[in-house]
Amino acid sequence: MLLPMGGSLMSEVISIASRSGTYQVLFTENILEIIKAYSNETIFIIDEKLQAPYRDIYSAIRNPGRCIIVNALEQNKTVNYCQQLIKALVRLNVRKNYTLVAIGGGIVQDITGFIASMLFRGVRWQFIPTTLLAQADSCIGSKTSMNLDEYKNILGGFYPPSKIYIDIQFLDTLPTKEIKSGIGEILHFYFIANSPLLYEMINNYEELLLSRHHFKKFISESLSIKKELIEIDEYDQKERNIFNYGHTFGHAIESISNYEVPHGQAVTIGMDIANYISKSIYELSINEFNMMHDILIKNFPSYQIPTDKIDDYFVALSKDKKNIGKNLGCILTDGIGSMWKAQIPLDGVLKSTISEYFEYYDLFDK
Amino acid sequence: MLLPMGGSLMSEVISIASRSGTYQVLFTENILEIIKAYSNETIFIIDEKLQAPYRDIYSAIRNPGRCIIVNALEQNKTVNYCQQLIKALVRLNVRKNYTLVAIGGGIVQDITGFIASMLFRGVRWQFIPTTLLAQADSCIGSKTSMNLDEYKNILGGFYPPSKIYIDIQFLDTLPTKEIKSGIGEILHFYFIANSPLLYEMINNYEELLLSRHHFKKFISESLSIKKELIEIDEYDQKERNIFNYGHTFGHAIESISNYEVPHGQAVTIGMDIANYISKSIYELSINEFNMMHDILIKNFPSYQIPTDKIDDYFVALSKDKKNIGKNLGCILTDGIGSMWKAQIPLDGVLKSTISEYFEYYDLFDK
Repeated sequence: MLLPMGGSLMSEVISIASRSGTYQVLFTENILEIIKAYSNETIFIIDEKLQAPYRDIYSAIRNPGRCIIVNALEQNKTVNYCQQLIKALVRLNVRKNYTLVAIGGGIVQDITGFIASMLFRGVRWQFIPTTLLAQADSCIGSKTSMNLDEYKNILGGFYPPSKIYIDIQFLDTLPTKEIKSGIGEILHFYFIANSPLLYEMINNYEELLLSRHHFKKFISESLSIKKELIEIDEYDQKERNIFNYGHTFGHAIESISNYEVPHGQAVTIGMDIANYISKSIYELSINEFNMMHDILIKNFPSYQIPTDKIDDYFVALSKDKKNIGKNLGCILTDGIGSMWKAQIPLDGVLKSTISEYFEYYDLFDK
Repeated sequence: MLLPMGGSLMSEVISIASRSGTYQVLFTENILEIIKAYSNETIFIIDEKLQAPYRDIYSAIRNPGRCIIVNALEQNKTVNYCQQLIKALVRLNVRKNYTLVAIGGGIVQDITGFIASMLFRGVRWQFIPTTLLAQADSCIGSKTSMNLDEYKNILGGFYPPSKIYIDIQFLDTLPTKEIKSGIGEILHFYFIANSPLLYEMINNYEELLLSRHHFKKFISESLSIKKELIEIDEYDQKERNIFNYGHTFGHAIESISNYEVPHGQAVTIGMDIANYISKSIYELSINEFNMMHDILIKNFPSYQIPTDKIDDYFVALSKDKKNIGKNLGCILTDGIGSMWKAQIPLDGVLKSTISEYFEYYDLFDK
């Protein structure tokens, strides 16, 4: 049984130390008032999908005419699209002392952060994440990512917002698969840190999908776990690499599904694959594997992998940007709370282990 | 009379502290050996104009096939051109652990630094500047700049190379106007810091244009002056602003001449205009103005301003990215070594002062 959350207006603050200065995550229950209070030297960059469910926010930012609407599709996460938006900002007379405010999910975050990092050699930006994935994971950590042709996230940098406002009321209008995507990343943090909230989340999984106002403490815990390592290793050169757990194998799932599987659900399968390899080739015990599998399976997508896509899957793995030479760069595990960085050859042994996994757990679409 | 420089192989080092770590400027007399010694995990980005005069360097980097040739034109300083080069880098199998090495002037520097800052969220790069302007000024200070349509340098960031090698032998093949452009920026640093080398440089101006191997100590002094402020204010938020001296009025000269006037020569006129405004409207004495004018006039371009371009000149000034509101952001002076930051209305008084300057010093093309 989940306890209801507290009722204060700006109830919690998480501060993140960064090389560009300290920035804050603030939880709020009245985002509209915060949006109305921004000065004239603000331009909002907002996901057009929010227009129908959040008319009040739209009219608040459209009235002063300081608003750019974006089509938040993966294929718009390009430098060319960003340049179009920069021209629109210039038409709105943006200046170096302005603040850009992103309202949306990870794509709007990437676009706004990327633009802010390069316009006038850097302008301030703030972020109001509206998806569970963005609220519980991507909103902190500074990364910006752009695609170039088939190379996903090959371009970008590190440029954190100066402030992040989280209002969990945005979760109410999200489709279930987006909630599951967010849960995937939350599970990934909880596994890495052996969080006491892991079992509470899983035991209340179905209830959480319906009653989304219970998410606040899970988001807060997720961000607190992430905070610990990004403060040590903001530029992802060492300690932070561990957060890549589930991602190498997950990215390849996203790729072969043409991004039909949402990121956090792909990471859910990705963790199970990393665990299976850890069990079959390395030291993870069968019991621990099974226990983690039972948690992960709840959050799997309905997607089945076409059997003829298995070679595409290996090709996608071979192109991962964490690879060094011919070795696959990934994170493996000896159990909850015990992940390690691996460089493993993408050879026959690894390929047959992965095929066996898909076969055994009936993930192929036959 | 200028003293000859010393003869050691790697004769001097200047270290620059930066938020991304300390980086070094090394003076060398044998750049070819340094280029040959780079590892396989290096890709060179080189100005095609260097091909004819420096065949030995070209063949050294072409033989291992790790080389991208760029057309270093102002109109190629765009994000689109950079994306084309990134695709070429990917075809050469660039990886995050690679080093990009730029060989050329400021445009090749901007392009390489910009690409390095965003490829794989940042790769290492080094710089071998081949123009006097790049050797004596732009090679340190971290800035990268890209144009977007008519907006010059509106995009970019701060991303220093990890090492800079200066070989003054590159100066031998430069056209005189490029040497004068470099001298313009050197004068600007010497005026700001009241350098003891100011009069030595001016008294030997004609000799320097011919005997370019005397430039080393002037370059070293210029970089040492710049180092002092960029180490305090790398991101150009306060102290470093003073280096904008001559630039606001110079950029507008570049703009109305369609970049026919090289940057450092435009800055030379720009300083004289700033001084004239300082004398006419503020506190600069006539004697001090005349003394500085006598130095600057030596380095003026032959360009005459078409009289019908004066309004374009004011429009260009009004668009300067350092402006705040309707005020022109610029640096004025009370004399050598005493510059100050001004926000002055671009009104009738200022416009007639500038027109008077062009008229009185016969800079209009009549």
